[in-house]
Amino acid sequence: MTGKFIVIEGLEGAGKTTAINTVARILNQHNIDDLQFTREPGGTPIAEALRHIIKNGLDNEPLTDKAELLMLYAARIQLIDNVIKPALKAGKWVIGDRHDLSTQAYQGGGRQLDKTFMVTLKEQVLGNFKPDLTLYLDIDPEIGLMRARTRGELDRIEQQSLPFFERVRQCYLEIAKQDRTIITIDAGKSIDDVTKQIEQILTKWLTKQV
Amino acid sequence: MTGKFIVIEGLEGAGKTTAINTVARILNQHNIDDLQFTREPGGTPIAEALRHIIKNGLDNEPLTDKAELLMLYAARIQLIDNVIKPALKAGKWVIGDRHDLSTQAYQGGGRQLDKTFMVTLKEQVLGNFKPDLTLYLDIDPEIGLMRARTRGELDRIEQQSLPFFERVRQCYLEIAKQDRTIITIDAGKSIDDVTKQIEQILTKWLTKQV
Repeated sequence: MTGKFIVIEGLEGAGKTTAINTVARILNQHNIDDLQFTREPGGTPIAEALRHIIKNGLDNEPLTDKAELLMLYAARIQLIDNVIKPALKAGKWVIGDRHDLSTQAYQGGGRQLDKTFMVTLKEQVLGNFKPDLTLYLDIDPEIGLMRARTRGELDRIEQQSLPFFERVRQCYLEIAKQDRTIITIDAGKSIDDVTKQIEQILTKWLTKQV
Repeated sequence: MTGKFIVIEGLEGAGKTTAINTVARILNQHNIDDLQFTREPGGTPIAEALRHIIKNGLDNEPLTDKAELLMLYAARIQLIDNVIKPALKAGKWVIGDRHDLSTQAYQGGGRQLDKTFMVTLKEQVLGNFKPDLTLYLDIDPEIGLMRARTRGELDRIEQQSLPFFERVRQCYLEIAKQDRTIITIDAGKSIDDVTKQIEQILTKWLTKQV
């Protein structure tokens, strides 16, 4: 039996890491032990090399929005073909820290890249491949960024302005509304509350998968 | 006055380096001294990092055809925005060792990637930007590869099979037929003969640019 691909999405400081641990714990409680964790961009040698450039730039060269988008998709197809698909085929469940929805939200919503281009790239690079379930941790960017800042230095993308992240959030919410496989979680609540929301949603979803 | 962008194209072993030197010499004879040389993929710190992965791979990870294509365009837009356009604007003439025609020929013809995808990527990433003149050095791949092999070890792309390079050549020839700004040069001839062809073509072209 092939595994399932569950993705955690959300703004900086939304609590993705805690959510990933919660998801893994609940899967374990359901005797799903063979897990593969991924992060995007990244997760293969080539994708991690691209991540490094996207996150940190190189020699102060301005990274164009288009090159950023193309590198994100290059990293994604490397991860899908070389890690995610083989893992699913081997019966593993894959838990992703971000996937394509991040690109839709950050590059589409945040950077406002051309929609036709975004749609074509997604279709041509990913085809029909998509997560079985996405948990989107929704948070007010002011609160999320405050949390993220306490963690240390911000990278190229985390240094964007508040209106950028507000556009990203709106884009996340709009896409989540239109796609049944994306479930929005109120991540503005306490950690305990968010964990309970994830437990309820995931447990219910798992009963439908058997 | 803005500069012009002249590109040298062709298979491995077609004699691109000699041709580039010939073009530079002829431009100098016409008092065009402020030249900027580029190579693709490459020519900026980020584009060179991408070139290294495209040419050599990384940690033996299979590089998918799609990721290769996306990285080529990421490198190209970095070079165009950060080097070629500023140079042209400053009145420099740019001599390119390969440009988009290589991607059309190698990834479109050689790797036979989806045509709709190729066209959309080119349009969306490059817009109207294109070289003022392209000199395509046409050579039988068997002869070209024999020449290239005597230069040393072959990279990821140079290791492709002969039918791959035959498809690349056919694609070069077809596009050259349809685009007046691409001039095909018989690079199967002696170095002296090829140099004479370039001198004649370029001198004639330059008289029309004034």
